[in-house]
Order: sequence, then C-alpha cells, then structure tokens
Amino acid sequence: MVEGMPITALTKFMELVSKHIDNLKNTIDEEAIERFFESLDNSKSIFVLGAGRSGFVARAFAMRLMHLGYSVYVVGETVTPRIQREDMLIAISGSGETSSIVSISQKAKEIGSKIVTVTSKRDSTLAKISDIVLIVKGKPKSEKDESISQLFPLGTLFELTAMIFLDGIVAEIMARKRLSERDLELRHAILE
Amino acid sequence: MVEGMPITALTKFMELVSKHIDNLKNTIDEEAIERFFESLDNSKSIFVLGAGRSGFVARAFAMRLMHLGYSVYVVGETVTPRIQREDMLIAISGSGETSSIVSISQKAKEIGSKIVTVTSKRDSTLAKISDIVLIVKGKPKSEKDESISQLFPLGTLFELTAMIFLDGIVAEIMARKRLSERDLELRHAILE
Amino acid sequence: MVEGMPITALTKFMELVSKHIDNLKNTIDEEAIERFFESLDNSKSIFVLGAGRSGFVARAFAMRLMHLGYSVYVVGETVTPRIQREDMLIAISGSGETSSIVSISQKAKEIGSKIVTVTSKRDSTLAKISDIVLIVKGKPKSEKDESISQLFPLGTLFELTAMIFLDGIVAEIMARKRLSERDLELRHAILE
Amino acid sequence: MVEGMPITALTKFMELVSKHIDNLKNTIDEEAIERFFESLDNSKSIFVLGAGRSGFVARAFAMRLMHLGYSVYVVGETVTPRIQREDMLIAISGSGETSSIVSISQKAKEIGSKIVTVTSKRDSTLAKISDIVLIVKGKPKSEKDESISQLFPLGTLFELTAMIFLDGIVAEIMARKRLSERDLELRHAILE
Repeated sequence: MVEGMPITALTKFMELVSKHIDNLKNTIDEEAIERFFESLDNSKSIFVLGAGRSGFVARAFAMRLMHLGYSVYVVGETVTPRIQREDMLIAISGSGETSSIVSISQKAKEIGSKIVTVTSKRDSTLAKISDIVLIVKGKPKSEKDESISQLFPLGTLFELTAMIFLDGIVAEIMARKRLSERDLELRHAILE
Repeated sequence: MVEGMPITALTKFMELVSKHIDNLKNTIDEEAIERFFESLDNSKSIFVLGAGRSGFVARAFAMRLMHLGYSVYVVGETVTPRIQREDMLIAISGSGETSSIVSISQKAKEIGSKIVTVTSKRDSTLAKISDIVLIVKGKPKSEKDESISQLFPLGTLFELTAMIFLDGIVAEIMARKRLSERDLELRHAILE
Repeated sequence: MVEGMPITALTKFMELVSKHIDNLKNTIDEEAIERFFESLDNSKSIFVLGAGRSGFVARAFAMRLMHLGYSVYVVGETVTPRIQREDMLIAISGSGETSSIVSISQKAKEIGSKIVTVTSKRDSTLAKISDIVLIVKGKPKSEKDESISQLFPLGTLFELTAMIFLDGIVAEIMARKRLSERDLELRHAILE
Repeated sequence: MVEGMPITALTKFMELVSKHIDNLKNTIDEEAIERFFESLDNSKSIFVLGAGRSGFVARAFAMRLMHLGYSVYVVGETVTPRIQREDMLIAISGSGETSSIVSISQKAKEIGSKIVTVTSKRDSTLAKISDIVLIVKGKPKSEKDESISQLFPLGTLFELTAMIFLDGIVAEIMARKRLSERDLELRHAILE
C-alpha cells in the first residue's frame, strides 16, 4: 500500500466515532432500558445471539453478564442448554434482518421466551417480533455517502456503538447493584 | 436492581468514552503504524491472537483483514495452519502479561515470525519481545480511582479503545489501497 | 450415582460400537466416494458445516483437510469468506433436517456451489438438495428400542460413526495422494 | 488424486478401528472410573479442556455432561467463570504434554481443583499432576510403523478412541442414574 501518507483516515475515523458516541447520550431510550433491566432480573437465564462481528459484540456482553452474576449462555456454544419460557434472548443485529438471527429468535418467541433486540432499525423483522427494542444508531442515513462508507464499511459503526452502549449498560447495572470491579474480578476466568 | 433511577452511569460512560476517543487521535504513533502497514503487506499470512474480550476484538479485526483481502487466521480456530517465518502474529493484550498470550507469542518469535503487539503497556513482557508495539491507552493511571473502575471494570476501556483503533486502521488501509465498501462486501460471508 | 456397580454399560457400548464399525465397511458406497474425491480436488475451497456435536465432527474433519493441503473453512468461524460457485459445501447432519443446516445449504446451492451431505437419512431434505450424499448409518431402526437409546442417546451413534468414517476418508486420501504423516505434521498448528 | 482405485485404506481403517475398540473393553480401569464418577458428583462445576481435535472431543463430552444435568464449562468459551477449589478440570491430551494444556492444568491444581486427565501416556507431565488418570490407548507402540501412521496420522487413533470411551462413560452414567434419552433431550439446545 502507499506508505508515508499522513494518517488522515484514522484521525478522521476517531473524530467521527467520538462525536457519534457523544451524540448517543441524547438518544437514550430510558423507558426501554428500564424495561430491559427489569426483564434481566426476572429471567431465569439469558441467551445471547449475534452473527459475524455482531456475534463478537454479543459474546463480549455475555462475558460481562456472567461477571455480573447472571446465568448466561451464547447461542451456538457448547454448554448452552434448551431455552425455556422463563428465559430471555438478546439478539444483536444492525439490520435486524440477518436470516439465521431472525429464524432463531422466532423459535425462541414460539417457546414464550422474552425477546430483546439490539438493532439500528426499529421497523426491522427482528424489532417487530421483540418484546424490547434497544436502538443503537449506526451509519446516519443523511451521510450515507461514499466518504462515510469508506470510513465505516458494512456494519462497523453499529458494531462499535453496540459494544460501547452495552458496556455502558454494564456500568449502569454495576451502579444500581452497587457492584465493584472486585466483584466482577472474582468471577473472571483465570484459566485462559 | 433499583429501578426508575436516572440513567446516570450510562450517560457518564458515554461522555468519558467520547472524550477518550477524541484524545486518542493525539497519541497516534505514526512511525509504528507505518511499520505495521509495511509488515502487513510483506507477511505471507497474518495470525491474530487474544484471550477473553481481547480475543473478540482480535477476531473482529481478523474478519476485517479477511474482507480487505489478507490471508489471515485466528490462533485456536479450526483451519489455522502452522505459523511460518514469513508470517506475522498480532497479539492483543491490555496488560501485555496474559500468560498464554505471552507464551504463544514467544513460540512464534522462536520460529522467526514478526510479532506485533496491541497493548496499553509499553514495558510489558509482550511489548518487549515484539517487533512492533501499537500502544492503545486504557484506564488512565491518574484517574485509577473507584469511580473510573466502577464505569470501566477490568479491561473494558482497553478493549473498546483497541476495537475502535483497529477499525480506524481498517479505514486507513482502505484509503491507502483505494478499496471501497463494495470490495469488502464481496468477501463478506453470506452463510451465517 | 450408584457406585461400585460392574461397568456393564460401558463394556456393552464398546462391543456395539466395534460391531457397528465392522459392519460399516460392507456399506461403503464406492461410487459416491469416488465422486466426492473428484469434487474435492475440483473445488476451489471447501466449506464445512454442522450443528451441535455434528459441528465438532465437521471441525475435526476440516482440520484434517487443512493438514492434507486443502483450502478449507468452517461456516461461522472468523476468517470464513463468501462462498463461491466453484466451492464445495460439506454439511453434516444425522437427520438431514436440522433447520439452520438446511437453510444454509440451500443458500449455497442457490449460489451454485457443490453440496455434499453426510447424513444417515437418504430421503432427508438435506440429502435431496445435495449433489453427493455420503450415507453414514446411525441407530439401526429395527433396534430402536429402549436399550439402544439408553446406550446411544440422541445422535451419538451417527456422530461417532461419521467421525470414524471421515477419518477413514482422510486415510484413503493420504494413500491416493501418497502423503505421509510428516506431510500433515508440517501443516499442523503449533501455536495452541 | 488417483481415482478409480479400490477403497482399500478406508476399509482397512474401519477394520482396525473396530478391532481397537473391541480390545479396549479389556483395558477398562474400573477403579479409576469409579473414582471419576464419585468426583463428578462431588464437584460443584466441571471444566473441560483440550487443544486441536482433542478440544473437539472435549466439547462433545462437555455437551453430553450438560445434557446429563451437570454444571459444565469449556475452558476458553465465553461464559466460563473462574474455576474454584470445589470444581473439577478434565483435560484431554493424547501425549499429556501439550504445553498450554499442561500450564492451564497446573494453574487449576494450584487453586486446589480436582484434576482428571484423559491421555494415552500414564507417565506424562499431565498424568503426573492429575488426581485421576483415565488411560485411552492410542497408536500401539509396537505397530508404530509406516503403515499405521499412514492410516492414523498424528493423534487420530487417540482422538477417536477418547470420543468413543467418553460416550461410553455417558452411557454408564445414564444407566447408573436411570436417565433416559428423553431426559437428555429436554436439555438439548433447540436454538441452533
């Protein structure tokens, strides 16, 4: 690749992410988040689901839920049991249309599990079948021009924002449950 | 958990992440990044490595490297072959001391592979054995008080910052190689 | 559990597996296997797919295909690219009806990739859309009584037989390509 | 590859596996298995560990332990918590020398967890630090000639035998606990 160029794309990228995250705090849907917290504590187990890079965001969140003391499973991992009526499924999909994610969520819905979706599309198939929808803004439509796609290809902006949003949710849970870093550390894997 | 509280931790979390990312652009080590780009293009294959949540960040980056057209593998996944002298290992570890990551990197070093570390500790064991060190600032030391640990428990800030930094690196590579979102999409998995 | 009992189930289990494997060699469909070998060598990349324990069998086979020198990917893993017309998908499913496996295979078929199914049901949905069907006998129907289900619950017998069959396929490929254990070892991961 | 050959390696492979499994039942160490069963029921959680193809065998066994009702985790997966003194670690390694497996098992031993090893080498490093050693015979030494390595390259015979042995252990647990296939099915994941 061309070397010795000023690192302009990286700098621009960070400026835009910083601004995007700062704006995010004005779009917080307090009512949906309250209902999410209530459901988290009323569910027997929490199942987390995502494909591709959203799947890594899902797993990073699942790991923290475990550190917080929840009974949590990742759909598709080895020790994940049958989901039950009293369980919650958290599906992460920017478009809300990823076919495997939609079809798995539909199965969980039929069983009667609570469905929570983290998506950027409120009118997506996934959002429509969900009990709780947590909107995370991805690529802004008005700026969906070449230059934005060039910096945030595919689901990049959604994935980053979802990861930050969910880590903020972890911080909020810690505050409300008066949990300290030490409480999480005691559950953190040491065989790795 | 206590419900109906104002969502203060989440809001504070976003403010601090936004500020942290904005500051990040002043700490870019252009020389290290140039050397990293040069090595990327001179390596036959790229191996990516991380434990826990840093492992998810590593995989999210590996997926984009594949989309960019690189030959890339995740250490520990099924189809990952024997690493060779002409290959590069990218290890991600906030502390630079995760024992399995250090010991695997040492093996790769013995073989003669190029070692790149993404870490927040320049004087860590991992950084010391690396050819290229990409510093990603995690929790600021001066603020390592209760309130910061409460918002960013364990490696949270490093993991988020590393994910954003590496996605910025992807944007920079796209700019230099004149790759478009469409080029990445053509390599994006559709069986999922 | 009740201790100090004679270990009768384990012994009986081994006897039946041994007999089952011995019978297996009389059911080898040479023509299907020849066509499979031909397709393997004519495909650009090989994609491997399975759910649950069949997914582990799929990955164990994928790892050996890599050791044998094929370009191989596991559907759902990090570095797996978009499947193409010139590629082959190997789906492993005892029932041939696992919904996600069927729907992913259908997508691959639409693209024009070659579909190979390893299953115990020749008239399953998966077998019907496949170019090549490799039948691996699971639980015999006539013996589908309590005592057999007690020893081989769920897909156990299919999974074991598929793993053995596919490792036998590896041995056959080695013989035909005159590859030695050393050739495989040279590709075996050492970072683990 | 050369086509149209008689499928002799595959047939020979099945004959030898069948014979190997049949012999296996004469080598069952009843006392070690009794102690293993006792420890399984006295452990709070069970952690399972393996690298490469032995890792897939480990996961296949972990999945069945979950189906049987045990609290079980795979080392390295997302929701795996910190191992405790009252937990058991089951490590699977043919050679008993895989470095990451040995070093992780040593960490677990320091914590005071019970260590169980499934290996073919009674005098290996891993076996020596273990509380219970379950020997699974791999490639017979006397036959370690070209022709055997040609059919069972690398750890093939150990991996197959370990998978069969552990599925036999599942059958034995079902018999002793009077569990039926239906009991397992009720815990089997349906979101996949």
